[in-house]
Amino acid sequence: MKFHFISHQRLFQVIYSYDIVTGVDLMKSVGIIAEYNPFHNGHLYHLHKSKEVSGAGVVICVMSGNFLQRGEPALISKWYRTRMALEAGSDIVVELPYAFAVQKAEIFAFGAVYLLNALKCDSICFGSESGEVQPFFNTLDYLNKHSETYNDHIKRYVKQGVSYPRALALAYEAVKDGLRNGVDLSKPNNILGYQYIRAAHEINSHIHFFTVKRNKAGHHDQTFHHEKMASATSIRKSLSENPNLDHIAAYVPESTLSALASYVNRYKKLHDWEDYWPYLQYRLLTMSDDELQQVYDAEEGLPYRLKKTAQNAKSFHSFMESAKTKRYTWTRLQRICVHILTNTPKNMMIPAAKKPQYIRLLGMSSAGRDYLNKRKKELELPLISTVSSYPDEWLMLDRKSSQVYAHVLPDPEKSSLVSLEFAQPPIMIGNRP
Amino acid sequence: MKFHFISHQRLFQVIYSYDIVTGVDLMKSVGIIAEYNPFHNGHLYHLHKSKEVSGAGVVICVMSGNFLQRGEPALISKWYRTRMALEAGSDIVVELPYAFAVQKAEIFAFGAVYLLNALKCDSICFGSESGEVQPFFNTLDYLNKHSETYNDHIKRYVKQGVSYPRALALAYEAVKDGLRNGVDLSKPNNILGYQYIRAAHEINSHIHFFTVKRNKAGHHDQTFHHEKMASATSIRKSLSENPNLDHIAAYVPESTLSALASYVNRYKKLHDWEDYWPYLQYRLLTMSDDELQQVYDAEEGLPYRLKKTAQNAKSFHSFMESAKTKRYTWTRLQRICVHILTNTPKNMMIPAAKKPQYIRLLGMSSAGRDYLNKRKKELELPLISTVSSYPDEWLMLDRKSSQVYAHVLPDPEKSSLVSLEFAQPPIMIGNRP
Repeated sequence: MKFHFISHQRLFQVIYSYDIVTGVDLMKSVGIIAEYNPFHNGHLYHLHKSKEVSGAGVVICVMSGNFLQRGEPALISKWYRTRMALEAGSDIVVELPYAFAVQKAEIFAFGAVYLLNALKCDSICFGSESGEVQPFFNTLDYLNKHSETYNDHIKRYVKQGVSYPRALALAYEAVKDGLRNGVDLSKPNNILGYQYIRAAHEINSHIHFFTVKRNKAGHHDQTFHHEKMASATSIRKSLSENPNLDHIAAYVPESTLSALASYVNRYKKLHDWEDYWPYLQYRLLTMSDDELQQVYDAEEGLPYRLKKTAQNAKSFHSFMESAKTKRYTWTRLQRICVHILTNTPKNMMIPAAKKPQYIRLLGMSSAGRDYLNKRKKELELPLISTVSSYPDEWLMLDRKSSQVYAHVLPDPEKSSLVSLEFAQPPIMIGNRP
Repeated sequence: MKFHFISHQRLFQVIYSYDIVTGVDLMKSVGIIAEYNPFHNGHLYHLHKSKEVSGAGVVICVMSGNFLQRGEPALISKWYRTRMALEAGSDIVVELPYAFAVQKAEIFAFGAVYLLNALKCDSICFGSESGEVQPFFNTLDYLNKHSETYNDHIKRYVKQGVSYPRALALAYEAVKDGLRNGVDLSKPNNILGYQYIRAAHEINSHIHFFTVKRNKAGHHDQTFHHEKMASATSIRKSLSENPNLDHIAAYVPESTLSALASYVNRYKKLHDWEDYWPYLQYRLLTMSDDELQQVYDAEEGLPYRLKKTAQNAKSFHSFMESAKTKRYTWTRLQRICVHILTNTPKNMMIPAAKKPQYIRLLGMSSAGRDYLNKRKKELELPLISTVSSYPDEWLMLDRKSSQVYAHVLPDPEKSSLVSLEFAQPPIMIGNRP
């Protein structure tokens, strides 16, 4: 594999100068919830817009670890994604624990908002199709008032066999007649935004919310449409078809190109579900039905279906194609597959996903360090910078998922990535250009 | 990989002509308990000596499946080993179920003798260092009479932390003063022979026993000493160092050379523990201590040791080197590793290893078929020739272990080997030369 770097004028440089010129409040922080798989120009736009609209000088990013919300391994490790985020302008990167990251929107959002609140973040800025924050509050208010009818509808739809996200959408359609200026919850970023606001309400947080309207690249677009903007999905698709970074260079900052290139140079690959398929298949074929039933989010009847499908499938993709149903969407099924792969049972996941117990610091800029130094006494959870002294069950899920994540690498790259889980101090970057 | 066949005068041909000349009783059968990993000249010698000393015309072989008594994957599948056994002179090959095969000598022997007894076999002929059968009976008799003291000694030694086989040997040493003409139980083949006779006694079988003195190649010899005889261990070692079959051609019949060559041609490899290491390591790193504690034969304290060792080991061999102790011998530990790999818990293995419930026919010669046709009404267990109609827990262990065994092959070879487990009728060979 060979990488070519094209140096060209980037949004990155244009926008970054803005911060330097204007000067911003370095004790004011804005939170971003992200996966950066990989970090692209849309993320960069969102990052800088977040500072602009919030007036914050410090960006705190809550980022999924090695496995992501859609039930996928990240292209590159959380460490390289942390560096990518820092180099592109984040000041503090903390890990959203596995117990919240590999979850449906509701729990994912709860974990992330809980952490930002515990970090005493002043505001959260999320991307949305809506672009206005008031409709989210209107919807929350309305649904809280009509919660009984709304929940009845959800239950009814789930009973009919549709997926949970689809049931939410249908229930919302069914009750929203009296709602004025609500948000369109059929759009994926609006859904997440709504869940962030709902989570803040649930924990009585007074955190401020801002939203930035998503630019033209749709969340799940698989192909490139825009000159400089492309969805992470389309970027991953391009990478899986052709590892030459030239093809994505227009859509990502140089820091992303260099992170991807040095990851491949260091660890010999970008991670893909297909790499894990032999292990998932092996596990499915050797698990008892009882054990499979204990896996988090696996409901009755699923074990038999998955085991039978695994028997003959030749790839992860063909396995998923055969296994998915109306009830088990691709995304939910992928998450269950991650839980099977990491052997994460209900009795470990459910208590772990109640609320975060720690803040795991993955990296910081010098501004981020100054911010944390000044704020550390106010933090509502312990701030963990190395894991070895915290042997509790929460970290175990993260450690185990990192073991599994690294397992597809050749040795000594595998051991070296695993050892970071215990030995890597938070990544520090100095002043950015 | 390239194979060269050297045609040369073989023991095989010399001895085989003997049977044709003398003529033997085709309704009289002799049982052999074997693993044939791979079938070599020592096995051929034993096979023909067994017919000679027993006067039987039919050789019934109970053979381990894809995983063996020492806790290893067989070089080639049970189907190819069955063909090897048939072509070299066996008439009926039945599978020793996983629940008995991957076990210490006592249970291995019990399962095999139970099956031969259920098959109405007239005699069993085993190889031994002793070469005489009477000392085995003397020892059995003596130890039965002194069972209390003997068992107390075993318990005491086990408590002192030595391995079970070592405790048996030490206890025997401690009690055998009054025993005349007993057998030397420090020799590996004598130990197995003693367990066969003991098992027959336990089930009140009147099966006859013969023994053939082992030739010069020691059971565990790793190098070649003799012109035509070599241990299976030394043959495997030679194959793992150099896949060129020329190096082992002097020690095995041509049928073995051709089975090994066509296996590699068909499935692209000879199976080795190192192929399974990534799966074992993955499993160890994702199992909870509780789950590991449930694995058959894993005692308290072992899970922690195994998981910790797996963390840093770079190969199966180095893992084993670090994990073995005085109490957990290499062989016992390897068996536990097979049970971990196949996810075989105590609660499945212990009931399955009580007594065999079926006889699984892997292959037969025309003489074997005639024999079974005439004897089938007397058999004490159902004779299974295809597994699909027997969905019970016993077969499940065998099926699962075959899935795991095939999992290291590339596709489509993997699926093709797995499908044999359900689709392969017993292998038939016609008249031999």
